[in-house]
Amino acid sequence: MRIEFYDTTLRDGAQAAGISYSAADKRQIFGLLDAFGVDFVEGGDPASNPKDAEFFAEFSHPKLVAFGATHRKGISPADDAGLVALAASGAERVCIFGKADLSQVSEVLGVSPEGNLSMISESVSFLKAHGKKVVFDAEHFFDGFAKDKKYALSALMAAYMSGADTLVLCDTNGGTSPLAAYEAVKCVCDAFGGAAIGVHFHNDTGVAVANSLLSVKAGATHIQGTFLGFGERCGNANLSTIIADLALKEGCDCAVNLADLTRTAHAVAEISNITLDPAMPYVGSAAFAHKAGMHSDAVIKNAHTFEHISPAAVGNRERILLSEVAGRSAVVKKLENLFPSLDKSSPKIKEILDMVKLLEMKGYQFEGADGSFVLLAERMMGAFKPSFELVRYEITAGKPDGVNTAEVTIKVGGAVTTAKETGNGPVNALDKALRAALTRNFPELSEVVLTDYKVRVVDSSGATGAMVRVLITSSDKKKSWTTVGVSTDIVEASWSALADSFEYKLTGQGGIV
Amino acid sequence: MRIEFYDTTLRDGAQAAGISYSAADKRQIFGLLDAFGVDFVEGGDPASNPKDAEFFAEFSHPKLVAFGATHRKGISPADDAGLVALAASGAERVCIFGKADLSQVSEVLGVSPEGNLSMISESVSFLKAHGKKVVFDAEHFFDGFAKDKKYALSALMAAYMSGADTLVLCDTNGGTSPLAAYEAVKCVCDAFGGAAIGVHFHNDTGVAVANSLLSVKAGATHIQGTFLGFGERCGNANLSTIIADLALKEGCDCAVNLADLTRTAHAVAEISNITLDPAMPYVGSAAFAHKAGMHSDAVIKNAHTFEHISPAAVGNRERILLSEVAGRSAVVKKLENLFPSLDKSSPKIKEILDMVKLLEMKGYQFEGADGSFVLLAERMMGAFKPSFELVRYEITAGKPDGVNTAEVTIKVGGAVTTAKETGNGPVNALDKALRAALTRNFPELSEVVLTDYKVRVVDSSGATGAMVRVLITSSDKKKSWTTVGVSTDIVEASWSALADSFEYKLTGQGGIV
Repeated sequence: MRIEFYDTTLRDGAQAAGISYSAADKRQIFGLLDAFGVDFVEGGDPASNPKDAEFFAEFSHPKLVAFGATHRKGISPADDAGLVALAASGAERVCIFGKADLSQVSEVLGVSPEGNLSMISESVSFLKAHGKKVVFDAEHFFDGFAKDKKYALSALMAAYMSGADTLVLCDTNGGTSPLAAYEAVKCVCDAFGGAAIGVHFHNDTGVAVANSLLSVKAGATHIQGTFLGFGERCGNANLSTIIADLALKEGCDCAVNLADLTRTAHAVAEISNITLDPAMPYVGSAAFAHKAGMHSDAVIKNAHTFEHISPAAVGNRERILLSEVAGRSAVVKKLENLFPSLDKSSPKIKEILDMVKLLEMKGYQFEGADGSFVLLAERMMGAFKPSFELVRYEITAGKPDGVNTAEVTIKVGGAVTTAKETGNGPVNALDKALRAALTRNFPELSEVVLTDYKVRVVDSSGATGAMVRVLITSSDKKKSWTTVGVSTDIVEASWSALADSFEYKLTGQGGIV
Repeated sequence: MRIEFYDTTLRDGAQAAGISYSAADKRQIFGLLDAFGVDFVEGGDPASNPKDAEFFAEFSHPKLVAFGATHRKGISPADDAGLVALAASGAERVCIFGKADLSQVSEVLGVSPEGNLSMISESVSFLKAHGKKVVFDAEHFFDGFAKDKKYALSALMAAYMSGADTLVLCDTNGGTSPLAAYEAVKCVCDAFGGAAIGVHFHNDTGVAVANSLLSVKAGATHIQGTFLGFGERCGNANLSTIIADLALKEGCDCAVNLADLTRTAHAVAEISNITLDPAMPYVGSAAFAHKAGMHSDAVIKNAHTFEHISPAAVGNRERILLSEVAGRSAVVKKLENLFPSLDKSSPKIKEILDMVKLLEMKGYQFEGADGSFVLLAERMMGAFKPSFELVRYEITAGKPDGVNTAEVTIKVGGAVTTAKETGNGPVNALDKALRAALTRNFPELSEVVLTDYKVRVVDSSGATGAMVRVLITSSDKKKSWTTVGVSTDIVEASWSALADSFEYKLTGQGGIV
C-alpha cells in the first residue's frame, strides 16, 4: 500500500508558539522535505498575509500546495478573495477546509446545514473549474461524526461529488481517542470505496501518531502532519515518527529516503530555530542512548535487546551514556580506543566507575562531558601527564566603576607564566587570561574556540550558596568535546571546566564513543 | 473501573539523559505525586547504587515501591544481593522484572527456558515469604508474545502461581504498534481472568500513551509510566497525559486531584531541572494557547470551538498569544490590583507591553518573574520610590590562596553604608554583603530567605561571554516572589535580581495575578 505524506510545517507548524518563517526559510524547508521524499508540502495561505502571498508569487513546484477555506457566506466563490487567490496561485494543488460538525456550522459559521454543504460544493467546483487538484479538509470531522454521523458524511459527500481529489478527516481539537478514530476512518473508507481518504490529527491527548497509524490500518492512504510535530497548542501528528513507523513497522510503501530521516529532522529544527527534543522517536539525539548498566551491557552484547530497530536505518546512531547507573561494559566501551587492554573484569574499570558514581553524587555529570571523563580515566590509570599546573588565579569585579579582571598564574614545565585580562564578566576574564597564559607555551590552543557554555544549579535550595555545574563545549574545527566543573563557586566550577577543556586538547586525544 | 497509576519517574525517569536526582529531590517528587493521588511511586533500586540505598534507608511510605530483578542464575534467592536488599527494604511493595521473551532468555541470560521460569517463581516466592506485595514486570513481553505467545504467557503464569499481586506487560523496546498492543493485552486479560494486569510502555515509536489507553480498553487496570514522559531513550508513557485522557475522555475512575495536574507537572519539571515542553498535552504552557487570529476570535466567542476540554479541569488556562490587543489585556489583568484605573486603551499599558517585549528580546523573562515585572511597571508608572541605591560593589576571588569577598556600598536616604562579607563564591559573598548593608536600615529584611537560585545561559554561542539570565526566588514565610536579572556578567545579573528581590519586599506589594 503506497502511503502519501502531506507536510504542513509551513502552515499549521507556523501556528506554534515561537515559530516564524521568512520566505527564504520556507524555501529551505521545502527543499529538505522534497529531497527526503515527502509527497506534498503545504506552503501557507496566499490570501492571509503578505509574506505568504510573496512566497507563492515567487515560487512554484508540483509538490507545493496552497491552503485556504471554502468561500464565505453570502457571496459567490468568484467574489471570495481567498478562493480567487487560490485559483490564481501557481499551485497545481490546493487544500481548502470546510466544516463537517453541525454544531460548528450553526454556532460559528451561522449558516443552515444545507447552506454549509453548498458552500463546500461550490468552492470545490470553482477550484476544479480553474484546473486545480483539490484536497478537502473536513474540519472538526471526528467531533461531528461522533455527534451526527450522517451530516459529517454528507459534508464529505458534497466535496467528493464536486470533484475533490482527496478527502481529509480532521481532528481539529485533537481530542479523539484511538479506537474512535479507527472506527470513524473505517466507516468512511467503507462508505467511499475507492476514494482517496486522508487524516489530519492534532496531539492534544497525546495520541496523534497512534491515530494516524490506526487510520492507515482502517484504509486511509494520505497522512497530514508536521515533520517535527510542532503546531498550534500541543502540535500536529509528528510526520517523521509516522513515516518511520509505517515504513519499518507496518511494511508500508513510503517512497522516502529513510536513511536521511535524522539529518532532515535536525535541519528542519535548525531552520525553525528550535531545539529538537532529544527524546523524539527515531531522530532525537537520545533515541538510541543507553544509560542503565544492564541495558548498556545487553546492547553492547547484542543491539536488538534494547533497540527496536537499527539506528542506521533512520540515519541515527547508538550512544552509551555514562552515569551512576552505568555498568562496567559502558566504561570499557568508552575507553576501548584509549586503553584497549581493559575489560569488564579489570579492577581499574570498577575503580573508574566507582569514581564516576561518587563524583555524580557530588553534582558532576559525565554523560555529556566526554572530555572530562577521558581525563579522569587517564588520571586513574596513571597515564596522565599534566601539560600545565595552576598556581593561582585572582579575579576582581565591580560596579559601576570596576572592571572585570582576572589574573592567572600557571606553571609549564618548570616555568611560571602570569597573564591578566579583562572580560565581560569574571568568568569571561578568567577564560581570556588562562588562554593568554597557555598560548604562550602552546600555540596550538589558539585554534580552540568555546562553542557552548551551560550553567546549572545542582541543588538550588542553598540559593546563592548552591552547588553549580558548568559544562563547556570546545571545538578545534576538527572535533568538539565537552568538559565539566562543579563547585559552590561558579568561577571555580568554570575554571575547572576550562582547564579540563585545554588539557583535553593538549593530550591530543582522538574521538571516543 | 478503578485504574491504578504507578509512577517510575524516580527510577525509569532517572535513566533519561540529563536527569539526576538527589535523595532530597526524590523526597520532594514523591510528595508531589502522593499529594496528586498517584497510587504507587517506584523509588529506585536499593541495591544498584549508593544514592538509592541511602534513599530507601531513610524513607518509607505505603506508596513507595522498591525495584529490582529476579535472582541471578546459578544462585539461590537468599544468596542474591539484589533480592535480599529488596526483602530487607522498608518497602511494603516491590517490583521485580523477569524475562518473557524466549530469545532474550537464551541470548542475554544464557539459561534454559525452564531455568528462567524457575528464576521467576523462586524470586517471587522469596519476596512473598518476606511479606512483600509483588509487582512482576514481564520484560520484553510484547516482543516475546509476538514470537512465542505460549512462552510469554508461561512467564506470567510462573509469577502468578508464585503469588505475584500484579502482572505487568512491558514493551521494553517501545516498538509495539497500537493494534498489536491491544490484542496482546486482551489475550492476557482473557487468559488470567480476575488477575490485576498492568502495562508499561516506552515511546520509541511515539505511541506509548495510545498503547496505554488501548490496554485499558482491553482490560488492564494498572498503568506504569513517568509523570512527564521522560525516561530511557524516547521516554516512557506520559502518565500526566494518560491520567487526564482516562479521567476526561474515557470516564475512568482515577482517584486523583485532576485540578492539580498542571501545577504538579510544573513542580516535577522544576525539581528535575528540565524545561517542560510547552506543547505537552493538558499541562504545557501552550496546551491551550491560540495564535491564529481566527482561532483566537472563535475561542473568545465560544471556547469549545478549538478546545477539547476546559483548561480549568486540569488546572491550566487558556492563553491568547501576543497579538498586540491580547497582550494589552494580559498586562491590564496582571496590574489590576496595583493600578486598577488602567484599562486596555491606556497609553501606559502599551508602553509597559512594549518594554516587556523589548526586554524579553534581550533575554529577560517576566512570565516567571512577577516581582521584577511589578517593579518595572511601577517604574514606568512613575510610582516607584527606590528604598536604596547602589553606589558600588567590588568582588575579589581567587584560588588557591584567595577568599571570595564582596564589598557593597549603598545609599539609604542620604546615608552611605558599606558592608564586606566572604562567601562560597562571589555571588554568595555579594548576596551576604548586600543583605548585611540593608538590614542595618531595614531590619524586616532579615526574615527574607532566598529559596531558589537559577542560572540559564540565554544564548550560549558566545560561550563564557554569553548572555546569562538569573532567576532568584525569595520568601518571607508569608509569600514568595521571583526576580530576574540579565547580563553577560553572571555577577551583575545576580546582583540585579538580588536588588530587585529586596526592593520588591520593601515596596510591601501584595501578590499579583
